[in-house]
Amino acid sequence: MAVEKQFVNNLFDVKGKVALITGATGALGKAVAFGYGHAGMKVMVTGRGDAKCKALCDELEAAGIECGYSAGEPSVEADVIRIVNDTVAKFGEINVLFTAAGYNHAQPIIEQELEEWKKIMDSDVQATWLFCKYAGKKMIDQGKGGKVILVSSARSKMGMAGYTGYCTAKAGIDLMAQSLACEWTAKYKINVNTINPTVFRSELTEWMFDPESNVYQNFLRRLPAGRLGEPEDFVGPSIFLASGASDFMTGANVATEGGYWAN
Amino acid sequence: MAVEKQFVNNLFDVKGKVALITGATGALGKAVAFGYGHAGMKVMVTGRGDAKCKALCDELEAAGIECGYSAGEPSVEADVIRIVNDTVAKFGEINVLFTAAGYNHAQPIIEQELEEWKKIMDSDVQATWLFCKYAGKKMIDQGKGGKVILVSSARSKMGMAGYTGYCTAKAGIDLMAQSLACEWTAKYKINVNTINPTVFRSELTEWMFDPESNVYQNFLRRLPAGRLGEPEDFVGPSIFLASGASDFMTGANVATEGGYWAN
Amino acid sequence: MAVEKQFVNNLFDVKGKVALITGATGALGKAVAFGYGHAGMKVMVTGRGDAKCKALCDELEAAGIECGYSAGEPSVEADVIRIVNDTVAKFGEINVLFTAAGYNHAQPIIEQELEEWKKIMDSDVQATWLFCKYAGKKMIDQGKGGKVILVSSARSKMGMAGYTGYCTAKAGIDLMAQSLACEWTAKYKINVNTINPTVFRSELTEWMFDPESNVYQNFLRRLPAGRLGEPEDFVGPSIFLASGASDFMTGANVATEGGYWAN
Amino acid sequence: MAVEKQFVNNLFDVKGKVALITGATGALGKAVAFGYGHAGMKVMVTGRGDAKCKALCDELEAAGIECGYSAGEPSVEADVIRIVNDTVAKFGEINVLFTAAGYNHAQPIIEQELEEWKKIMDSDVQATWLFCKYAGKKMIDQGKGGKVILVSSARSKMGMAGYTGYCTAKAGIDLMAQSLACEWTAKYKINVNTINPTVFRSELTEWMFDPESNVYQNFLRRLPAGRLGEPEDFVGPSIFLASGASDFMTGANVATEGGYWAN
Repeated sequence: MAVEKQFVNNLFDVKGKVALITGATGALGKAVAFGYGHAGMKVMVTGRGDAKCKALCDELEAAGIECGYSAGEPSVEADVIRIVNDTVAKFGEINVLFTAAGYNHAQPIIEQELEEWKKIMDSDVQATWLFCKYAGKKMIDQGKGGKVILVSSARSKMGMAGYTGYCTAKAGIDLMAQSLACEWTAKYKINVNTINPTVFRSELTEWMFDPESNVYQNFLRRLPAGRLGEPEDFVGPSIFLASGASDFMTGANVATEGGYWAN
Repeated sequence: MAVEKQFVNNLFDVKGKVALITGATGALGKAVAFGYGHAGMKVMVTGRGDAKCKALCDELEAAGIECGYSAGEPSVEADVIRIVNDTVAKFGEINVLFTAAGYNHAQPIIEQELEEWKKIMDSDVQATWLFCKYAGKKMIDQGKGGKVILVSSARSKMGMAGYTGYCTAKAGIDLMAQSLACEWTAKYKINVNTINPTVFRSELTEWMFDPESNVYQNFLRRLPAGRLGEPEDFVGPSIFLASGASDFMTGANVATEGGYWAN
Repeated sequence: MAVEKQFVNNLFDVKGKVALITGATGALGKAVAFGYGHAGMKVMVTGRGDAKCKALCDELEAAGIECGYSAGEPSVEADVIRIVNDTVAKFGEINVLFTAAGYNHAQPIIEQELEEWKKIMDSDVQATWLFCKYAGKKMIDQGKGGKVILVSSARSKMGMAGYTGYCTAKAGIDLMAQSLACEWTAKYKINVNTINPTVFRSELTEWMFDPESNVYQNFLRRLPAGRLGEPEDFVGPSIFLASGASDFMTGANVATEGGYWAN
Repeated sequence: MAVEKQFVNNLFDVKGKVALITGATGALGKAVAFGYGHAGMKVMVTGRGDAKCKALCDELEAAGIECGYSAGEPSVEADVIRIVNDTVAKFGEINVLFTAAGYNHAQPIIEQELEEWKKIMDSDVQATWLFCKYAGKKMIDQGKGGKVILVSSARSKMGMAGYTGYCTAKAGIDLMAQSLACEWTAKYKINVNTINPTVFRSELTEWMFDPESNVYQNFLRRLPAGRLGEPEDFVGPSIFLASGASDFMTGANVATEGGYWAN
């Protein structure tokens, strides 16, 4: 049986799907919000600040994207429940969950306060778990399958000094995806995968992009791609993982890291 | 800087690219040949048998796909050189290399003859290396970058009794991709990645798909996707990796294995 | 320069070292406590229950092992600080930290309460982090290097339905070890590694060892070793990682899983 | 049931075992030959040059080690058969196989001749496969189990420019070990594991140890251990994997790489 043209034409088609995007006001989340929107998805954005969420939503709508927002703290259960409910109230359903919210504070373990370490773990792992639980429950109840894409990191499989919070958290997210794949895909047709970016340009990382700096030079030596990431680098993989083109992929930790793991 | 609609629209666009596909007369190679063709690529197919290559090419053309063929033994250097030259003679250039040729013969090591083991290694690893070398050289000389997708296997990272040939070979292919990523991506804008399928339906594997059989039942227990693969499952990932959507991915061993590695 | 006999004779010698063992009243922790003790180490045991810790200590002393105990909740910072201080008060220093404390409760994510998930994460990850921080600080202050062995799991790299707590936690521990290796080994000569057991016999798992059961039969199919683990299987690797024989190993996730990852 | 002192005392005891060591005249092979010998094993050494093998054997005997030698080309089947037979003729049996023979020649793929690439593959992979086959057959026939330790490399899981031979070969060796673990351990009590060293000091690598050089400085940045390897670093892991202490480990790729993979 040959592969049909119609099948190929529709592979990456995500039109009309409803996506909930966390950390949407950050550089990666925002790029994916525009990416998903321009690909025809309805986009629900969330982040900590109400004003920032609203501003992003205005920007998306100005670009012709169907959009809603609901601000909240992603590691607080009541907020997550409300945000998920707001999404369904606004768009009727959730088909894609994309979790870009995260936090890091690099410190040697013996200098890091427990509260600060917990903040990393809660912002990265607990927030992801809560959104998976409550958005996943909706997807299960809807009975139409779904796609969950968790933003992990190249750091999920490689340690770093000062990163007993961040590496630990991101490794956890990789395995959360693998476990949910075991739990959900066969049963509910919900695929769960991660993307694992290396450093990409944002307000926080702009300083690393100085081509004269040692940090940048050392990165280049490590990165087969020959450059650090840009937020738009993750739009393609994120649409791919939200589309039928990746239906046979689940529990995958997708290397979107410029080849960092390969070197 | 927001992500533009035009950028998103073009992400998966591969129209007009020239792809050389090895093992094209096999189930996976054929699916990808149709997939690439329906996506607008010019497709050069190769395989061991001239008649089978011609028949496939006829089929592709009947479906409206621009196509050529050149048969040969993929582990024989002179044949590889000729096939690569034929591709350039036919289409003017090579933009994508997709290596689906392969071979396996499961046997306990103490029963396997050296010649048989070498046949596995040559068919899987040497053939891949030769096509990378000669198609890669063309891409480098063309100076326009390129995409190389090597078909590896879920077995590249997990052993199996009787598989000291196949697992060894496929693990090698994963690292060949990683090494070529280090060698080529920054310098020549050639991305090299693998897809790593689990068992998919073909003439050889049809017997595993009997839902009553123990083999099938044991597979299902292991596969989060809840089913074995179909050739068309790999079309989406293969177009993705041939397109600009994956420009920041290189040296990746992409888990297209129904979650086998996640469990 | 040839390797000397004296060097070889001393490779696995750990006599006189002081080890702090968490989760020591569990099956694995207890086996390692006896193993370390019989190898000549001074052993400080800790666990939740004071009576159980005392009883274990009595047992160890009856076997001729120099021993102390200090009970406490391993995820509570004040308890960890006290236990570490008690160890130094008792034996003058800490040379080896072995963290066997852990907890699991398998549940589908949509049924698991946040508090229960947090209990898994706190018992497994936070407890490990706290002991690393406070015992590590002592080792750094002592200036004589040290060995840290974290008990992770085969599940740290493979998901499982119902395990969004446990797999997430254990993956985190693997990367905590990798990060601490980056942070500590070159600077302080403290090596940090994990052992990653598959299921081993304990009160909790005894039911899995019924050779007639499906659970057991399915495990055997997956386990190249041809059997599930016994607590004493981990004594050798644990002494190895506490000894000079492994001085060039750090940040390693050591597969002590009967080959589970290899299959 | 508590762990007994006798059990602990014997964990690393390898006295009287017969080991066949390939590549024994290289830096790592020689260190392990002395290590095994000083630990009380009978050591059969092999390498390409008869005179070098004899000289090594003399050195080992001068150190009080029971030793034999048999020179040959490790990728030539007839030589391997003869060497294995010589070992049994000399010592009556083979209990441990340690394969340190290997070869590399770094070149860009487009410059590397097929014959040169094959030489890498044959020296590294085929030689290892042949020794596994023929020494393994002896172990199986003896019916007393055994230990196989294959020397792979940190490069088995990380690519490198110029390394489409070496990385490919070493990745293959990792999976050969995993496959043999699946094939042999449950059935014949033969454990098969790899050690994966990073760069260690030898005649070939001495130039990398210049602390002033960029190569060395870049390595240090990557290596959590804070130094490159010395041949004696691998003696401890090699005895461990030859001993009963690692009986539950099989199919493991043991990170003896100074933390290279962790960073």
